[in-house]
Amino acid sequence: MRILYHLPQSPYARKVRLVLSEKRLPCELRPEKMWERRSEYLEMNPAGTVPTLVEDNGLVIPDSTVICEYLDEAYPDNSLMGRTLSERIEVRRLTAWFDGKFASEVTDNLYGQKHLRRLTGRGNPDPAAIRTGYAALRYHLDYLGWLAETRKWLAGSLLSQADFAAAAHLSTLDFLGELDWSIAPPVKEWYARMKSRPSFRGVLADRVPGLVPPAHYADLDF
Amino acid sequence: MRILYHLPQSPYARKVRLVLSEKRLPCELRPEKMWERRSEYLEMNPAGTVPTLVEDNGLVIPDSTVICEYLDEAYPDNSLMGRTLSERIEVRRLTAWFDGKFASEVTDNLYGQKHLRRLTGRGNPDPAAIRTGYAALRYHLDYLGWLAETRKWLAGSLLSQADFAAAAHLSTLDFLGELDWSIAPPVKEWYARMKSRPSFRGVLADRVPGLVPPAHYADLDF
Repeated sequence: MRILYHLPQSPYARKVRLVLSEKRLPCELRPEKMWERRSEYLEMNPAGTVPTLVEDNGLVIPDSTVICEYLDEAYPDNSLMGRTLSERIEVRRLTAWFDGKFASEVTDNLYGQKHLRRLTGRGNPDPAAIRTGYAALRYHLDYLGWLAETRKWLAGSLLSQADFAAAAHLSTLDFLGELDWSIAPPVKEWYARMKSRPSFRGVLADRVPGLVPPAHYADLDF
Repeated sequence: MRILYHLPQSPYARKVRLVLSEKRLPCELRPEKMWERRSEYLEMNPAGTVPTLVEDNGLVIPDSTVICEYLDEAYPDNSLMGRTLSERIEVRRLTAWFDGKFASEVTDNLYGQKHLRRLTGRGNPDPAAIRTGYAALRYHLDYLGWLAETRKWLAGSLLSQADFAAAAHLSTLDFLGELDWSIAPPVKEWYARMKSRPSFRGVLADRVPGLVPPAHYADLDF
């Protein structure tokens, strides 16, 4: 069976798990502590990030963006990339928004600084980074809310990779208890729809030793 | 004619200019001081980055990665993305390497800190960031040199977007006088081949008020 090297709380690994599950492509999950820089792993993925996908035929695909483009080309059924050129532009723009801008302004601060630094023994979080993260989160929830209110799904009328990229980042923050859903009702309504999808079950069942997610984390009616 | 909003010294804009030129797709260049956050520009590209491409039919495509995927789908002739699934994985992996890892470790420090901060009035560069940038540059030149020595082009036997992503970052650093070519002969040989392509002429002709590139910058026999 195909193997996905991942970290349960990584939003990039979560996005790929969700996309694989939506496309009904089973995979075996193998946790990878990428900060230990295991040489066999670095041979597969010199950037040393998670996730990395390994297909049955031995094909190795590193980087969540590269994996999602590959999955769309190798398994075009149930495409999550949009149909027309215009739809595909918006799906990729928003995916880049969440995995680039949202990630660097919010996730890197509230997950990277507060959680990953401790986990990887790189010391205590920087309070300024955490303040920056919370301020940026409000701005991003406004934008997400606007998308959720004016469109059926984030990138338009079709469920797409953009929804899974956004949901993956929010699910990581929610798992860490960093989200106050009461301040963003339209985002909560969209996220409830995402959470109810069968593809989300694996992510909601994740447990990490030493981390207790808030009670509402896996609750579909939160 | 299609319009590319750009900044002459941006590596992301340079990559798109090179790809457009290789695909023989003419465009009008319009400089965009994205840090001024012009509202008409933010409507086209809410992330406020350069470049943004606007097609004759009005289609707006922001983000250099999104633009390159779009160009490959809209104009499949002279593809720079590879033919097989395996080639396309390697082209995308290396493009993400240069636009992600190389960018954050080298370009953001030596171009972002040393040049863009002053240009955008965000103060003086951080000396620690500049030291980090130079240290990372040596490591990246080793990796680039290894790719250039063991393969015809960076991603394999075919010239690809990965070559243009790497060449765009190096050309930005070279323009600012940050590259010592004597320490990386295999990279220099590969870059000389890139520089000699007709698609590179526009980038080599760039001049920015107040910045004088080193004498070898536009010299094909440097």
